[in-house]
Amino acid sequence: MTDKPIRVTVWNEFIHERTCESTRMIYPDGIHAVLSAAIREQLGAAVEVRTATLDQPENGLTAEILARTDVLAWWGHAAHDQVSDAVVERVHQRVLEGMGFLALHSTHASKIFRRMMATSCMLRWREAAEKERVWIVDPSHPIVDGLEGEFFELPQVEMYGEFFDIPRPDELITISWFEGGEVFRSGCTFRRGKGKIFYFSPGHEAFPLYYDANVRKIIANAVRWAAPRGSSYVGDGRNIEPSLSPIAAKHVVDESLHAHLKK
Amino acid sequence: MTDKPIRVTVWNEFIHERTCESTRMIYPDGIHAVLSAAIREQLGAAVEVRTATLDQPENGLTAEILARTDVLAWWGHAAHDQVSDAVVERVHQRVLEGMGFLALHSTHASKIFRRMMATSCMLRWREAAEKERVWIVDPSHPIVDGLEGEFFELPQVEMYGEFFDIPRPDELITISWFEGGEVFRSGCTFRRGKGKIFYFSPGHEAFPLYYDANVRKIIANAVRWAAPRGSSYVGDGRNIEPSLSPIAAKHVVDESLHAHLKK
Amino acid sequence: MTDKPIRVTVWNEFIHERTCESTRMIYPDGIHAVLSAAIREQLGAAVEVRTATLDQPENGLTAEILARTDVLAWWGHAAHDQVSDAVVERVHQRVLEGMGFLALHSTHASKIFRRMMATSCMLRWREAAEKERVWIVDPSHPIVDGLEGEFFELPQVEMYGEFFDIPRPDELITISWFEGGEVFRSGCTFRRGKGKIFYFSPGHEAFPLYYDANVRKIIANAVRWAAPRGSSYVGDGRNIEPSLSPIAAKHVVDESLHAHLKK
Amino acid sequence: MTDKPIRVTVWNEFIHERTCESTRMIYPDGIHAVLSAAIREQLGAAVEVRTATLDQPENGLTAEILARTDVLAWWGHAAHDQVSDAVVERVHQRVLEGMGFLALHSTHASKIFRRMMATSCMLRWREAAEKERVWIVDPSHPIVDGLEGEFFELPQVEMYGEFFDIPRPDELITISWFEGGEVFRSGCTFRRGKGKIFYFSPGHEAFPLYYDANVRKIIANAVRWAAPRGSSYVGDGRNIEPSLSPIAAKHVVDESLHAHLKK
Repeated sequence: MTDKPIRVTVWNEFIHERTCESTRMIYPDGIHAVLSAAIREQLGAAVEVRTATLDQPENGLTAEILARTDVLAWWGHAAHDQVSDAVVERVHQRVLEGMGFLALHSTHASKIFRRMMATSCMLRWREAAEKERVWIVDPSHPIVDGLEGEFFELPQVEMYGEFFDIPRPDELITISWFEGGEVFRSGCTFRRGKGKIFYFSPGHEAFPLYYDANVRKIIANAVRWAAPRGSSYVGDGRNIEPSLSPIAAKHVVDESLHAHLKK
Repeated sequence: MTDKPIRVTVWNEFIHERTCESTRMIYPDGIHAVLSAAIREQLGAAVEVRTATLDQPENGLTAEILARTDVLAWWGHAAHDQVSDAVVERVHQRVLEGMGFLALHSTHASKIFRRMMATSCMLRWREAAEKERVWIVDPSHPIVDGLEGEFFELPQVEMYGEFFDIPRPDELITISWFEGGEVFRSGCTFRRGKGKIFYFSPGHEAFPLYYDANVRKIIANAVRWAAPRGSSYVGDGRNIEPSLSPIAAKHVVDESLHAHLKK
Repeated sequence: MTDKPIRVTVWNEFIHERTCESTRMIYPDGIHAVLSAAIREQLGAAVEVRTATLDQPENGLTAEILARTDVLAWWGHAAHDQVSDAVVERVHQRVLEGMGFLALHSTHASKIFRRMMATSCMLRWREAAEKERVWIVDPSHPIVDGLEGEFFELPQVEMYGEFFDIPRPDELITISWFEGGEVFRSGCTFRRGKGKIFYFSPGHEAFPLYYDANVRKIIANAVRWAAPRGSSYVGDGRNIEPSLSPIAAKHVVDESLHAHLKK
Repeated sequence: MTDKPIRVTVWNEFIHERTCESTRMIYPDGIHAVLSAAIREQLGAAVEVRTATLDQPENGLTAEILARTDVLAWWGHAAHDQVSDAVVERVHQRVLEGMGFLALHSTHASKIFRRMMATSCMLRWREAAEKERVWIVDPSHPIVDGLEGEFFELPQVEMYGEFFDIPRPDELITISWFEGGEVFRSGCTFRRGKGKIFYFSPGHEAFPLYYDANVRKIIANAVRWAAPRGSSYVGDGRNIEPSLSPIAAKHVVDESLHAHLKK
């Protein structure tokens, strides 16, 4: 565990905030600005936060920037297809090397998340400003550190409901209840290579959910949880000759094997 | 659970058997022929088995054939890159729809397996004809049904060792010990969409492992385990309006939300 | 996989049906009678079903009966403490040997279930005849085989809600939504020794839920899933001398170890 | 995440060190002294470490001491039965409340570990001073933070081998290879209530393994990982009236239910 600040990049497609008046009212400087502020507010000197957006060169995610990113938080919705395949490939490789990845809300349908899940990531949805109650089902997980009680409420949200077509999560941390009748695995972890991935559904361009104290705490905790850590393995996948321990001399496909074959 | 036979397609790249004398001695009609015989021998009338090979049109895996396949067993090694991307896409979609997939031995490095794992799938290896001892660590799993004892031995094998760069398996069924000093998660399950995936490492073109009684039993059990089953969900990912249960009338981004925002 | 019938014992404390008029109206011959009929109806000749009740000698679960039981379904609520500790111990041992165990509804608070979970198994509850919607989140699992759609509804139930203090389930199959605002991990699997355990919450003495077609199907599927299967391991926990593979001769705590110690 | 030191209690039965000359040579002040030093060495001011031993009143684990313990490390071997049942009960309750628990080596057969696993916890063993190679299979886990490479070696150990009769671990972090032919799930995590449990097998009274740099690092990392964290849930298991969200008025077991029943 290092004492160096965790280098966070908050990526946002930054489209609704420019094209939709109601979103601009909530997120005048973009969702990325509010997410960055939330992470800084919670983690202080333990983080260095930068932002990146779709309209920047290489979608704001050059090799240099990714190389200096420990945790990448991603928010996309309206323009998943505009993210270049090269950037998707690059982000994927960095996750395998150990970069943490926070997949926020509608990022479930992004190229990068669907690629890392290798499922459709489809879900059911409804935009009816209904109530969501987020139940904590893994209360000792560091991602819910400091939250109070068994659940918290979000007064008006977009509903995301099951069946959510993802691989079995490594850890299921929260399950959401929706007024209109659905449930959702709203906080889940996955690992790919040396990288840790956290999917968290609360958050939408039409509701000010990234101002909610519990949502902010969970996202900040997830940054800390997803920061690179572990053993120094780099994944060589190589031939190991000579062997670590002695092997009795044999002839490949020897007599006994042929006897075995004849049985 | 249906009484109709499970329709199995055994796919083999079928290259070593034509180009390498020692492999031809062991598998004169191809690895697929021996695998097919093993599955028929174990499961009898409960299966219908066909084969497919790389050199056939569309790599032997047309949409029609896949539509009539319940479980696809795959063996590839020397020519992963020669499988067309369209076939890889098609197989992936069929797995998501519920087709079982057995990834045998060097299939770890195939396009289709790496795509469904979304990791490098790299491992360490050595071809030194050493001993492997396969330990059963999930003794109540249907895939080891009928095996006797805590382990079984394979006298001469290619070594596949950790670190094996895969997502955390849903289930870890066997761990292999190798004479030369490595361990390997040799039998693992994963789920993608409605499809069940079993990776099983024992099996190599230079050793007659697909004649081994325990290996054959495991593969046949895995066919039965991976056969499509479950609820009739087809993954619509759609808007649910009206809601299943009543929602109190609200104005989207109403006054209380703005108050919430100001906090 | 054997063709012999699965021997099922349905255990019921059989108290509410004798003391409470409204329960007697629903389950005149006891919950065990309805559960037995459901299992026979679904599985026919594939099962042999017997029943046992709390008031019988040794709570109906003698060593002889348990020895001839492949899957034990358990329903208890009002008299968990009246089950003898010797019976609890005996059932636990049989599970470790491979007997399946279905923990139905209020069995969450039984001695035997709490012992096998080693947690409080506490949950929140409410008896308000509210609606429950059971969502399937593991659609390829054999326990939901044959169910249609993403969910099914139960019109009036007792609510069981999170936080449910259980170990992380091996598999989470259903999540329930409740009209009054809670969610619940209503269908979960666990393994202990060679035994498979399924907890399923829908079912209550005051509501006729064991007549519901989906509930019956799930319970019957779970009987089939929990039936003993797997490798013949019996758990010896013994000293292995001589070793399976050769060990280079060494002196215990030899010079190099002392050098190691001094470092 | 608090900045207060993690309060660690290292418990040792402290018998071999007093009765066996070869153990005294390695651990003159007891295994607990060496473990305490290792934890202090790695974590410095982040921990406060005390020790407790079997021969103390209440086995050294009074309610007061446990109340001030965040993580309890446990080493027992020869005298599991001498630990009082009241102490076992007390430790179990504290784990459910959130105290971390490190189960070291032969602690697999202790009353407290077997109670929390609810399985036999049996394994195979051999004391032949053979080599162990500990392979890291979860390289991004905080418990292996800072380790270098894919594995580390221990020159002479007691062998602990599969089948290890434990529930499916929540996380499998290391798998050990043994010269004599076995494998072992040597580093595993479990959760019970709000408490985190880490089982780690390397460590024996006859070998100086607790002086090994990698073993020490893993144990210190595990202290940090197991420290209490998470949401403030305390497990009330109570009736929730009135409901959180409105429920349509109904009569319990009403007409529609009776119709349902007749179907």
